[in-house]
Amino acid sequence: MARAVELARLGHGSTSPNPVVGCVVLDAEGRVAGEGFHAYAGGPHAEVVALAQAGERARGGTAYVTLEPCDHTGRTGPCSRALLEAGVARVVVAVPDPNPKAAGGAARLRAHGVAVTSGVLTEPAERVNEEWLTYARLGRAHVTWKFAATLDGRSAAEDGTSQWITSPEARADVHRMRAGADAIMAGVGTVLADDPRLTARPEKARPEMTRPEMTRPETARPETAGSEAARSGATRSGSAVRVPLRVVVDTDARTPQAARVLDDAAPTLVAVAEDAGTDLKADLLRLPRHDGGLDLHALLRELAARDVVSVFLEGGPTLAGAFVARGLVDRVVAYLAPALLGSGPAALGAAGAGTIADLHRLTFDEISPMGPDVRLIARPALHPGKEQ
Amino acid sequence: MARAVELARLGHGSTSPNPVVGCVVLDAEGRVAGEGFHAYAGGPHAEVVALAQAGERARGGTAYVTLEPCDHTGRTGPCSRALLEAGVARVVVAVPDPNPKAAGGAARLRAHGVAVTSGVLTEPAERVNEEWLTYARLGRAHVTWKFAATLDGRSAAEDGTSQWITSPEARADVHRMRAGADAIMAGVGTVLADDPRLTARPEKARPEMTRPEMTRPETARPETAGSEAARSGATRSGSAVRVPLRVVVDTDARTPQAARVLDDAAPTLVAVAEDAGTDLKADLLRLPRHDGGLDLHALLRELAARDVVSVFLEGGPTLAGAFVARGLVDRVVAYLAPALLGSGPAALGAAGAGTIADLHRLTFDEISPMGPDVRLIARPALHPGKEQ
Repeated sequence: MARAVELARLGHGSTSPNPVVGCVVLDAEGRVAGEGFHAYAGGPHAEVVALAQAGERARGGTAYVTLEPCDHTGRTGPCSRALLEAGVARVVVAVPDPNPKAAGGAARLRAHGVAVTSGVLTEPAERVNEEWLTYARLGRAHVTWKFAATLDGRSAAEDGTSQWITSPEARADVHRMRAGADAIMAGVGTVLADDPRLTARPEKARPEMTRPEMTRPETARPETAGSEAARSGATRSGSAVRVPLRVVVDTDARTPQAARVLDDAAPTLVAVAEDAGTDLKADLLRLPRHDGGLDLHALLRELAARDVVSVFLEGGPTLAGAFVARGLVDRVVAYLAPALLGSGPAALGAAGAGTIADLHRLTFDEISPMGPDVRLIARPALHPGKEQ
Repeated sequence: MARAVELARLGHGSTSPNPVVGCVVLDAEGRVAGEGFHAYAGGPHAEVVALAQAGERARGGTAYVTLEPCDHTGRTGPCSRALLEAGVARVVVAVPDPNPKAAGGAARLRAHGVAVTSGVLTEPAERVNEEWLTYARLGRAHVTWKFAATLDGRSAAEDGTSQWITSPEARADVHRMRAGADAIMAGVGTVLADDPRLTARPEKARPEMTRPEMTRPETARPETAGSEAARSGATRSGSAVRVPLRVVVDTDARTPQAARVLDDAAPTLVAVAEDAGTDLKADLLRLPRHDGGLDLHALLRELAARDVVSVFLEGGPTLAGAFVARGLVDRVVAYLAPALLGSGPAALGAAGAGTIADLHRLTFDEISPMGPDVRLIARPALHPGKEQ
């Protein structure tokens, strides 16, 4: 299953609105017969790739799959049927499918006499699929809040200058992260202050986008449709240019028509209040007001309805504070520079925590040097029960 | 020399106002004959310990020493003479002695025909001795500024509550760090707000305080006075109770007589302005005013004159900002909790950097998990040329 999770990770960032899934098929003697991952939406599912690779060797064998096999016919046929047709005797699942449209795969397999085990290596399989699981379970887009700041938490100097606090290495990492998201979001304050492009400009292919050759089973086997599919998946997604949607949260419709975020480098959605008067030529999303801003929950639901599984939130402090206050930040990515300012705007604005008992507790997932800086990845300690 | 630096580190935190020094003596055939470190002020110097352990085997051998051997008679005789009397043929030094009283050891050795090499493994040897070298070179105490904050740089919530942002593990580490300093310093604002004790209360012996058995040379050797010295040094410093001086920076003498920092748990120095009127019963240090506060350079020089080599500065934000602004912070130790506040006092107050060009650049030395928190150790990128 660990290998299946590893395979699933290869699809990360290019499968939306589908989950990432990895699958390993063993033959009846327990030898690896096929491997696959879901590489892009519309492409073959992980199980189909792995079964095609295994061919007849799948019969009587075991399939390890990171997510419960689907039972519905979308752009591809149900994986439950493919597993039955291939004659596997046992299916081991890490995470049950929370998607009501796709669930039922395990039940169908059991009904046809296949032994199904669930809950194996659940945590890493959840982790690798966290954006999609948030989207599927909560019906809203998953939010990663990124900030860059000095060690003392300032994202700009007193006079507003901020270029550059963090290193080229950290900024390149931000572009890689942006490229893996379905949408890049900022508040109108940031648009007015910095006029950002909010595009992903990775310097080179993301390491995650580099598709390694599929690991071949140790025994020789003839070329199959499955290995074709794996290769074509690799080619397709290796060359795919995904352009994240840009989203401006702009309650009172103050985005200037000449803002870079409205250029033609990527599609842009401007979220404004239902009653905001504006003649802005842009794709407007009208949302209820909430607490001096917009209803952010409604915003994330609307984005999910548009197949936006993951949002990369880049601030500024006011918008980030509103997201944190509502418990709508699912992951924090902080780039801290070894530098001190002592004054200037804080990275995070008011977040509804006036006393220490209301502290928004997180846990660190990753602590990594990033050039001269450090990147800290954290997630809510109580997520998602904390969501308000 | 790497072993000598390792030995030197064993004395760290208990040698003030002396440097930490490590020494390895090889016999004429290049085999380890003796090892030593300076364990406590007044105790035998590293060279003396190592030479005594080596005995006759030092003759014609080589001594590796992390700091240039002293040439003056203080509480112990000059090490240069001890090396000559032992008949070593060659001395390898990492860092020349910047102390005019003690320097000249290399010259005396050379004058007596001993080959002296200098500048070997200088960087780690400087690092292990950084507090003392700052003190010896700049004539002022070395300053470590510690802060504990949320990931967004807040050291308390809006209502002033701050217990506890960081974990028990991080707080225990702070006590170990305090115990290794000669003085613990805070501003009067912190005294008035939190009434801290400013004492070091390590839960158990610091790992650095645990004296391992001296590594014996591989060949058998008779017990000597030297090994006695090494053992008695170990015993002496293992049981030594060093109580760091507490220093309150209190320009206008506002410290309440009942403040915990004035209890009898440790000596306390209250630094006040020359013209501050006060009837506070405490050890007062009167200093010139500077820029709305005290002349911090004068404070650090006065502390050095009192044999305070290292200061552990604990804030608050105003005092820390003043130290940072004057380039008087030699090391930053940040404990960041995986938590967000979004409001409340920042860890660092105004530090004279109004625009990004004035950013106080540091470099990260160490990034370590500390329980659920992370500890980041950084030092000025341009130190000490930056000092103003």
